[in-house]
Formats: sequence, structure tokens, C-alpha cells
Amino acid sequence: MTPAEIAEMVERVMGLPGFTRWSGMRVLSASTGAVDLALARKPELLQFNGHFHGGVIAALADHSAGGAVTTTLDPGRIAVTIALQVNYLAPADGEELIARARVLGGGSTIAVATVEVASVTAGQERPCAFATVTLRSVPSPVA
Amino acid sequence: MTPAEIAEMVERVMGLPGFTRWSGMRVLSASTGAVDLALARKPELLQFNGHFHGGVIAALADHSAGGAVTTTLDPGRIAVTIALQVNYLAPADGEELIARARVLGGGSTIAVATVEVASVTAGQERPCAFATVTLRSVPSPVA
Amino acid sequence: MTPAEIAEMVERVMGLPGFTRWSGMRVLSASTGAVDLALARKPELLQFNGHFHGGVIAALADHSAGGAVTTTLDPGRIAVTIALQVNYLAPADGEELIARARVLGGGSTIAVATVEVASVTAGQERPCAFATVTLRSVPSPVA
Amino acid sequence: MTPAEIAEMVERVMGLPGFTRWSGMRVLSASTGAVDLALARKPELLQFNGHFHGGVIAALADHSAGGAVTTTLDPGRIAVTIALQVNYLAPADGEELIARARVLGGGSTIAVATVEVASVTAGQERPCAFATVTLRSVPSPVA
Repeated sequence: MTPAEIAEMVERVMGLPGFTRWSGMRVLSASTGAVDLALARKPELLQFNGHFHGGVIAALADHSAGGAVTTTLDPGRIAVTIALQVNYLAPADGEELIARARVLGGGSTIAVATVEVASVTAGQERPCAFATVTLRSVPSPVA
Repeated sequence: MTPAEIAEMVERVMGLPGFTRWSGMRVLSASTGAVDLALARKPELLQFNGHFHGGVIAALADHSAGGAVTTTLDPGRIAVTIALQVNYLAPADGEELIARARVLGGGSTIAVATVEVASVTAGQERPCAFATVTLRSVPSPVA
Repeated sequence: MTPAEIAEMVERVMGLPGFTRWSGMRVLSASTGAVDLALARKPELLQFNGHFHGGVIAALADHSAGGAVTTTLDPGRIAVTIALQVNYLAPADGEELIARARVLGGGSTIAVATVEVASVTAGQERPCAFATVTLRSVPSPVA
Repeated sequence: MTPAEIAEMVERVMGLPGFTRWSGMRVLSASTGAVDLALARKPELLQFNGHFHGGVIAALADHSAGGAVTTTLDPGRIAVTIALQVNYLAPADGEELIARARVLGGGSTIAVATVEVASVTAGQERPCAFATVTLRSVPSPVA
């Protein structure tokens, strides 16, 4: 896929109805093996203490990893998560989260991506979580 | 805490504004070291393929683990997640999810809980995910 | 496979030269989806503080999970680990470790097993670690 | 600590009797927040298929992470592992393993390190595993 096709594919999947669109995730950049997503703060995404909810951080990391691995697959295939591991490093108390997923490696069936998640306050990024996502390749249910 | 106090505490935290209340998580049961939560299907919680989103499953598992560990702590303390690991076992395509968290062990600072998540269709449960959550005890920000 | 065939297969793989035989792992029991292994203390398996080394615990958990999943596969196939997660719950300061692996679920390609590891002192077991192992099925290199 | 003190401390802990010394792990470099270790092939460290055993890879990753975090602590304190996560990316079939641990972040009690493990054949490195290790700081039992 060309970079433009990759970005279009990632945008299209995220624009389908469901949690991803509802939450407001958007694509910052996408290329082969790398997808960066952003998610702005809104009350429905927070913990009771006003920080982004850990499950929301997990979902953002998971999506960026799925996108990053899918960009490396043959057309008509998509990556689905089999295991998701998130370490929470610091409070996610910013205005926005940015997740940067990179494919680490793997073979034709299984792939692994790491994701750095930063909390952004007044334009300053601070790492707030790190994820490792294990995915496998399946035929895409989205034509 | 008595069982009634435990249930009240878990309900109270989940009723505060934010992702937990918005998503519709509710307490099925709570006792020392064990919390069961349920979450009904709604469009905003799904993947594009109509299954519960993996991040939503992660959030439900995380909350039930946090509740289960908090029931074992001294009053005025709460468990916060430092690492979350989820294995996805089968499509979460039911009408409802049920998460059952049990404290595995740990000491005064760090605790570990496992969570079995089932997808419920027409009253039949099927395991769809398994999580291991590592938490630590901190002073509660909620009076 | 019959239970006797399962036990024979697990014993045979562990008796091949390498870390497993060198460390002294032995089979306590094996049936479809369940393998229990034991490992006695010796100085080369310990941390500097006299407890079993965390990597040795990880290896024991990994082997028992691999055995447990392999018992569920068609003949001629073997389970190999793609992701290993271990939580350390208490010091492994006993005379022996016992690992009990159970297959949690999964499909034809990917399977997940959990492993409870106990440290045994004077016949008393105490949980010291909990592992979740993600494996995939491949053709066996051992005839 | 100065770099020389850091290297000396890491060497000293690894030279104490036990699995680390027996296996032959050695320090390639050590500085604040970063420790690189190497481990040469020998038959007792292998799987039945002739690759380094997954548990041995886990142990090497764990040690390098523990060293890396300990270099960031106050004197008299040491990092112990509470959770270890390893993804296996490719067969570890080289003559030697190299593990490079880097501290990701964390606070005064809990820290997280990532570890890249490479298999080395004829001087060429190939990534074979990636680990995320969660540790906590405790008083050192080694004077």
C-alpha cells in the first residue's frame, strides 16, 4: 500500500460506528509498520479522579497497534489482538493522549507491536503508558 | 468491611462521573477479595464487527480487579493498576459481559488479581477473555 | 491420546538434552489440557538470596504450559510459546517448586494456559507465582 | 553512582553463586538506567531443538532489567521483579544472546524497563525477543 492508501484504510476502519468513533480517536500519521493516533479529553473517557481511564488508554494502544500491524499485511487481511499488555507509568491527566505504535517483528501469522502513549498538556508530552500487543492476521470482515 | 459496606463502596466509586458510569458497568456481587461486574451491550461499546471492543473488555476487567483488591485494603486506601494483561479467547459477541475478579495474592503494597470475562448470549456464558492485573495500594482520593 | 501416551510424550520431550533435563524438571501428572511439573532446589537454580531464580520459575511455568497445550493438539504437532507473562507473588524459598498448568481456551491455532506455581516447604505448598502463557501450534520437530 | 561503580555493582551481583553465574551471564556495559548483558550458548541452556530455551531468555531479560533499574536507585536498594512479560519474536539459534535493558519510567516505588534481546550469529544480530519488566525497589539483602 502507498502511504495515502494506508492512511485512508486506517481512517476508514476508525470511522465505522462503535467505540473508536464514539471516543473520538483520530489518525495523526500512518505508514508501513507505524500508526500514530490521538484522543482528546472528554468527561466520558475519564476515571473518577479526572485522569484518562486505564481502559481507554488500553483501547487507544490496542487500536494503534492493530493499525500498525495491518499496514504490513496483504490487502484483504487485518490484524486482531490476541494479547494486550499495558504498563501505566504516570497519571494521564493531559488534554489529549497520543499513541505511537511500531511493529517490532513477527512472522506471517503472528506480529508484535509496541506502543508509547503520552499525555499532552499545553503542548508538552509526557509518557504515561507503554503497551506490548500481540496480534494475528485474519481475513478482513470489512470489504 | 462488611459485605454490605464492600458493595456500597464499589457501587459508589462506579457511580462517579466518567467512563465507568457512562459505559453502564454495574456490580453483580462484591465480597472480600472478589468483585463481579456486568456490562450490557450498546453500540458505543462495540468494534466495527459488532463484538465488544477489546479496550472495553480491558476496562471492565481492570475495574473488577481494582474493586476486588480494594476490598482487601484498609479503609481510606484504594488499589490502582500498574500493569494490565488481557488475553482474548473468543469473540465477545453476546448481549452482556460478566467479569469475575479474584485476588490471587500479594503483600501490603502490591497485589495481583485474575479476571475471567464471559460473554453472555441467551443466558449462556462463554469465556471470552482472561486478565491478570497488578495493582498497588495508595491513599484514596475519594473521601 | 490416552493418559499413558500423554505422560509418555511429556516425559520424552523433557528427557531430551538441554535446559529442561539439566535443571531436573519432572512430570507429576499429565492429562488432556493439564500438566503438573516439579523441580527440586539445587544451587545452580537459585538467586543470590537463596530463592529460586525468577527465570527458572518462568522456565518451569513455560514448560508446563507447553505440555498442557500440546496434549490437546493433533499428533505430530507441538505448542510453542509466543508470549509469557509471570507475576511473582511471594519468595520461592522452598525445597521444591510445583507448577500446575491448565489450558484456558483458544482455537485451532492459538491457545492460552494459566499456571499456578507453588513453593513447597516441609510438604506445605505456598503460591509463589502465577503465569499466563500464549502458544501456537506448529508441526513437531521431534518425531 | 559513577559508571565504574555501576559496572562494579552489576558484576558483583552476577558473580554471586547461583543461576546467573552458573549460566555464564556477563556484563557488556552498564550506565544509569541501561544495562547490556551477554550469554554464550552451551548445551545446558538450550531447548530440545537446539535454540536457547525460552526460560533462559526470560532470565537474561529479567536480570538485565533488574540491573538497569537498580542503577537508578539510592545506594543500599535493589530492584526486584514483580511482573515479567516476554514476547518471542524469532528462534534464538545463535552463538550468543545479547540483552539490552533500558528504564522506561516509573516513580520511587515501581519502575518499568524494556529489554531487547538479540540472537548473534557470526557477528550479526537478529532480534529474538522483547520483554517488559515491572519491578519494585526494596532494601538490598547484599551488603
